[in-house]
Amino acid sequence: MDLEQRLDKRIDFFNRELKRFFKNGSPKILYDAARHLPLAGGKRLRPSLSMLSYEAVNGEVEKVIPFAVAVELIHNFTLVHDDIMDKSKLRRNLSAVHIRYGEPTAIMAGDLLFAKAFEAMQNIPVDPSVFKELYFGFVKCVEEICEGQQLDMEFEKRRNVTEKEYLEMILKKTASLFRYSAEGGAVIGGGTRDEVKALKKYGESLGLAFQIHDDYLDMSSDEKILGKDIGNDIRNGKKTLIAVHSLNNATGKDKEFLEEIFGNENASEEDVKSVFKLFNKIKSIEYAEKTALKYSNEAKRALNILEPTDTKEILIDLADYSVNREK
Amino acid sequence: MDLEQRLDKRIDFFNRELKRFFKNGSPKILYDAARHLPLAGGKRLRPSLSMLSYEAVNGEVEKVIPFAVAVELIHNFTLVHDDIMDKSKLRRNLSAVHIRYGEPTAIMAGDLLFAKAFEAMQNIPVDPSVFKELYFGFVKCVEEICEGQQLDMEFEKRRNVTEKEYLEMILKKTASLFRYSAEGGAVIGGGTRDEVKALKKYGESLGLAFQIHDDYLDMSSDEKILGKDIGNDIRNGKKTLIAVHSLNNATGKDKEFLEEIFGNENASEEDVKSVFKLFNKIKSIEYAEKTALKYSNEAKRALNILEPTDTKEILIDLADYSVNREK
Repeated sequence: MDLEQRLDKRIDFFNRELKRFFKNGSPKILYDAARHLPLAGGKRLRPSLSMLSYEAVNGEVEKVIPFAVAVELIHNFTLVHDDIMDKSKLRRNLSAVHIRYGEPTAIMAGDLLFAKAFEAMQNIPVDPSVFKELYFGFVKCVEEICEGQQLDMEFEKRRNVTEKEYLEMILKKTASLFRYSAEGGAVIGGGTRDEVKALKKYGESLGLAFQIHDDYLDMSSDEKILGKDIGNDIRNGKKTLIAVHSLNNATGKDKEFLEEIFGNENASEEDVKSVFKLFNKIKSIEYAEKTALKYSNEAKRALNILEPTDTKEILIDLADYSVNREK
Repeated sequence: MDLEQRLDKRIDFFNRELKRFFKNGSPKILYDAARHLPLAGGKRLRPSLSMLSYEAVNGEVEKVIPFAVAVELIHNFTLVHDDIMDKSKLRRNLSAVHIRYGEPTAIMAGDLLFAKAFEAMQNIPVDPSVFKELYFGFVKCVEEICEGQQLDMEFEKRRNVTEKEYLEMILKKTASLFRYSAEGGAVIGGGTRDEVKALKKYGESLGLAFQIHDDYLDMSSDEKILGKDIGNDIRNGKKTLIAVHSLNNATGKDKEFLEEIFGNENASEEDVKSVFKLFNKIKSIEYAEKTALKYSNEAKRALNILEPTDTKEILIDLADYSVNREK
């Protein structure tokens, strides 16, 4: 069985539980808007991470489901609001929520998803002290996501961003929810201190690898495959690791061209392609992929302390997938 | 001492605690945007309600502060997002957050306020079982606020809204947080079942009275006093109780005129004034004020079971204030 098949079993189970939790409500349009993305599927990486971390230290999976629902809903909340802020039109090959339902309803739908995530948390069957620990972590994680998203937006307007700043940004914006998803699964599964620490580290490194590879995909694959607007990132001046590396390493005419086109909303399809070629020439894409691989390897290394199990195998495959996937 | 003086002592204390809780953070712009409204003041009705309800059944006030901070931050979260949706420019005589910091940062600032409210909840010094009860109520309350705000937006686009529908909307949008603020204060104060029930009812009725009177104020007072855009509600076709009553009771030419101007974005200052005159003629303003008074009286009646104390006096005065205030 390949990775996808082994994950699918869990994702199917998760999807049924998510659907059962997030029933329709009133006003219908708000609930339609809020359910638009989460029920449209997606990779379900974060809930998978929670389920796998739980399994890695325990056995059955039911107990972790409300937590998995919570992290997936928080993820979707950030997508709905991010798409408004980034003016993205597509998501998961569907219209973004604000395109389909209008911006005001999309803002509300995001807020409702946020609240629903906290509602899901209530159903985690753990002791009050464990619940409090999970709750603290959840709040902190959401705050970090907000901070990371704000940094991401601010970086778009800045000419110079260091690699260190970039890493801090994606650590908050993306890796913190991956870390928390894995950590929470292990905590709910009753993992030892070392197991929790290992899976937390795994989640964080996976998140970094995933985000760096994601930015790469957004710059290379075509719109149909990825379900996002191609070239968006270049036109918005988005500081991906590739862009950061290029802007910091380009010289002469390349630097001039890059600074003229990168972040230029009116850049033509042709210009976007030239920027992409420049990224290749400066070996920024190579550099980003190497960096993503480094974090993927760090993620795998963190698993060393775990007993060899089928679940551990899946986690290792997931780390490989995070840097090999084409969509 | 008048009501204001007696409340001020508590509000000053609350403001210091709020400031201490909601420190600056990074990125600075996000935290500036998120702190813009809550630190600008405001009536602090909801935290006052929490403090007074706590006092009404208990003594000292420190224990309830984290809860009071939480309800105030949730209130501010809704204001920040509502102002984006309603395209309001002013709030508390300041620029709305989205005007000052731009829409993307304002969306994030609202989200951060939401998270900060849940962070504040963590610090309530109560038993885990009580905490869980408060937590359940908080999530439910935020969901109701989202639902109410969505209904409010949908009603703007509808021609006919019944009084019953209007009441359901403000019950969710406004009264639920008032109810929860009072209920939570009483719960944390260790009130009896009957005391909690009474203060919950008080909070809800106060919220209804407050909202109906608020809509009235928005239609009558000038921009300088209220810190909101005058006539906004009429141009947006906002279904206040006054509007609902007028639309359901106007006849002949009045009805025609009302249907032409109400909800017309381009209505002139003159037209807005004529609509207001019509509201008077149909006695809709009188009707709304009578209804607000009814709820204010209901609020006071709910307090009957409480012992006569200074705090009870303040709660009674607050109910009067909710329908008499001019800003």
